[in-house]
Amino acid sequence: MRVRNKPWAGDFIKAHPEIIIPNPEEYKGNWQKLFGNDHPLHIEVGSGKGQFITGMALQNPDINYLGIELFDSVIVKAAEKVIAAGTPENVRLLLINGADLEKYFTKNDVDRLYLNFSDPWPKSRHAKRRLTHESFLKIYESILVDEGEIHFKTDNRGLFEYSLVSVSHYGMLLNKVSLDLHVEMPEDNVMTEYEEKFSAKGQPIYRLEAQYQLKK
Amino acid sequence: MRVRNKPWAGDFIKAHPEIIIPNPEEYKGNWQKLFGNDHPLHIEVGSGKGQFITGMALQNPDINYLGIELFDSVIVKAAEKVIAAGTPENVRLLLINGADLEKYFTKNDVDRLYLNFSDPWPKSRHAKRRLTHESFLKIYESILVDEGEIHFKTDNRGLFEYSLVSVSHYGMLLNKVSLDLHVEMPEDNVMTEYEEKFSAKGQPIYRLEAQYQLKK
Ligand SMILES: C[S@@+](CC[C@H](N)C(=O)[O-])C[C@H]1O[C@@H](n2cnc3c(N)ncnc32)[C@H](O)[C@@H]1O
Ligand SMILES: C[S@@+](CC[C@H](N)C(=O)[O-])C[C@H]1O[C@@H](n2cnc3c(N)ncnc32)[C@H](O)[C@@H]1O
Repeated sequence: MRVRNKPWAGDFIKAHPEIIIPNPEEYKGNWQKLFGNDHPLHIEVGSGKGQFITGMALQNPDINYLGIELFDSVIVKAAEKVIAAGTPENVRLLLINGADLEKYFTKNDVDRLYLNFSDPWPKSRHAKRRLTHESFLKIYESILVDEGEIHFKTDNRGLFEYSLVSVSHYGMLLNKVSLDLHVEMPEDNVMTEYEEKFSAKGQPIYRLEAQYQLKK
Repeated sequence: MRVRNKPWAGDFIKAHPEIIIPNPEEYKGNWQKLFGNDHPLHIEVGSGKGQFITGMALQNPDINYLGIELFDSVIVKAAEKVIAAGTPENVRLLLINGADLEKYFTKNDVDRLYLNFSDPWPKSRHAKRRLTHESFLKIYESILVDEGEIHFKTDNRGLFEYSLVSVSHYGMLLNKVSLDLHVEMPEDNVMTEYEEKFSAKGQPIYRLEAQYQLKK
């Protein structure tokens, strides 16, 4: 996904600080303040055009959601989706890099982390960029609650194979694995944009739930 | 796979004690004696008609192989395959139940364990019969070397999903996972009878390598 910075995107973002939070570092350790309650906080890294995070927010009003996205022209689409959904109180967006999560979150800030259709980076020399690489798993661990979970969906076989091995070697527990999610579609599954596209082509959707373990 | 005891099978088995070992309990702790050398020992539980174990033996003359099968009429087919291959010195068969491995093997007897296209037992009340159920993983651990590995192939999605979770919860490491083995067919892959059948139908073949970890 190649996206360049778009000037119009910057203007839109400035005009919507109620949705795309302009100063996320201020909430580090205190995200309750942003949402005005102490509901659990779930974040999606690489939220793209926002269908998942918006849908999850509508489905689960007692959970707070943050969509995290690197590209301004993409996050604008997500913000439009949040607005179209009536700007639910429990979903906000951050224009930040997933590699920098520790600037904005501290241990126990986050109750669950979602990754959906993350960029596959198929070449092994790019393995470090995969959002399930050990270095990312370490960052996630440092902001999640103890025994926190990562829920990951993708159509990409290579990335999924890699991720199973990566979470296992990190010492995480695999609690659930589906190798063709849509065959017995879970009632509460919220589709992402990529999920709609790839499943329409008949490709299987892979999904896993992995959990951090307490260090002994 | 429903198989009844066949009288002719009993006669064949008695006539071939050099292939289907009649007294496996005698070799417990001392399988070198059977093979006349101290090469590593790899076993397959549920070896069926024997194409895999025979093919592996031909491919790897410096490894000893035991095919383990529960049903006499099936093991006869495997013995015929061993004979047709010229009765290689490094492959033998055992007509025993995988649940009884500890009667015939002691800790460190086995260097690697293969499971191929094990019966899926799809109903959850039959989960205990699956050869990757915790109770079987415990048996395998008690006869394998430290940090020994299980290599498992199947076409069955449900069984594979279950097995990923089961080995993870047992504390094993996932070292390798393939969700469509034949796409980039490993050069040294030896096909089983079931693998030929299911891959011919276009079904993906799943494969994993899981490793026991030293207890801390
Ligand atoms: C392939 S798209 C998938 C989008 C969406 N999750 C879906 O399933 O439809 C991956 C998204 O992750 C974003 N992304 C990639 N690396 C990122 C990072 N390090 N931090 C934040 N977002 C990132 C990309 O900009 C892109 O929008
Ligand atoms: C579905 S067949 C697969 C045969 C072969 N591995 C293949 O891939 O073609 C499963 C085999 O495992 C055997 N089996 C099932 N449970 C077993 C057990 N507890 N101990 C030994 N063999 C068993 C069955 O008799 C059958 O031959």
